[in-house]
Amino acid sequence: MGNSLRCMAANNSEVWHRRLSVTHSWGLASVHKHVQYNKFGFIFSGNMEYQLKDAKDILRRTPETLKLLLTNLPEAWLMSNEGPNTWSPYDIVGHLVHGEETDWIPRARIILDHGEGRAFTPFDREAMFEESKGKSIGELLHRFAELRAQSLRQLDELNITPDLLVKRGLHPELGQVTLSQLLSTWVVHDLGHIGQIVRVMSKQYGDAVGPWKAYLPVLTR
Amino acid sequence: MGNSLRCMAANNSEVWHRRLSVTHSWGLASVHKHVQYNKFGFIFSGNMEYQLKDAKDILRRTPETLKLLLTNLPEAWLMSNEGPNTWSPYDIVGHLVHGEETDWIPRARIILDHGEGRAFTPFDREAMFEESKGKSIGELLHRFAELRAQSLRQLDELNITPDLLVKRGLHPELGQVTLSQLLSTWVVHDLGHIGQIVRVMSKQYGDAVGPWKAYLPVLTR
Repeated sequence: MGNSLRCMAANNSEVWHRRLSVTHSWGLASVHKHVQYNKFGFIFSGNMEYQLKDAKDILRRTPETLKLLLTNLPEAWLMSNEGPNTWSPYDIVGHLVHGEETDWIPRARIILDHGEGRAFTPFDREAMFEESKGKSIGELLHRFAELRAQSLRQLDELNITPDLLVKRGLHPELGQVTLSQLLSTWVVHDLGHIGQIVRVMSKQYGDAVGPWKAYLPVLTR
Repeated sequence: MGNSLRCMAANNSEVWHRRLSVTHSWGLASVHKHVQYNKFGFIFSGNMEYQLKDAKDILRRTPETLKLLLTNLPEAWLMSNEGPNTWSPYDIVGHLVHGEETDWIPRARIILDHGEGRAFTPFDREAMFEESKGKSIGELLHRFAELRAQSLRQLDELNITPDLLVKRGLHPELGQVTLSQLLSTWVVHDLGHIGQIVRVMSKQYGDAVGPWKAYLPVLTR
């Protein structure tokens, strides 16, 4: 748990001398973490430790968030992308469905059952171009919600304890990884694709905003 | 409406020779727009024209989306930012509240009432650091939802027609802008800040994902 005590704001001149002691409960273990504030709130740590309870809380929100953003959205907004070889919001939901079917829980099981003895099956990032064919966005959103609920049940059934989180597996390209890194990636993957969906949508008005483009960094990312 | 016929995929070798004619109805006017597909779906246009009906549909979703993402989120996730002088999800919701109070509808009214004769009141992007003090995220989310619903009612009451959309106003820094550009910016501003919230959250696991960082562009934006 050494990370939690790492100094997080060494070069920050705006640190306030106010500190908060946060208690993280995590199964039977608990750690105390000192967090420094500045006038903008907490200092960025970037080294928050993976916590199963918080991660599940975030993963649980994704299907409804996607439904809210995309259900009955006009087709032009749903199907437009950022240019050649990029994905539309519709494509992204299909990608998340495929991840749920083949990536997260299956890989967690490979780590738990085989450790580094068996590399993960490579993940096809573009499988949705075939798999989503003929499916409406409503069907994809519903399917994703079902699969995510199932994944979270399966995650509970794996009974992951802190000592299992450090267990290692073998990624076909990245090499040695841990279960904790896989489960953290699941969360960031969700958040990244929600961000991608709203970025793709915002770019459709890239010209329509006129001179305001200079104030809207999302349009040039 | 010349924009709608602009060639959108001149340099794209993957264009399919399939076209779709989309009819946009817009008050009494309607335009036909030809959209080219590639294997990834629609080609990106970036020059979608502002349409009041679609824009309102997107703006209406934002309060619920924010509630879904942030209600009862653990405090560390809510209050952490991307580093010095950046905003946390909590800060961003306060910023959206302030925009709703002072930016969008008030500026639309200035354009409609005064044209270029009166520059907009400058918008304080950081007003929330004072205004949010002492307020819970639940209070801010509720306030934002109330204000957004009110803004959308006011937008309806403005009875904006296509000829009003091209009416010009004066931005204190950007100079000449149109009502259509202001209203398009409102949409992109919402989407950009939703994207910012999930990006800020994702960065808290910047270290936790280990070697997967290389596959997660959201962590390095």
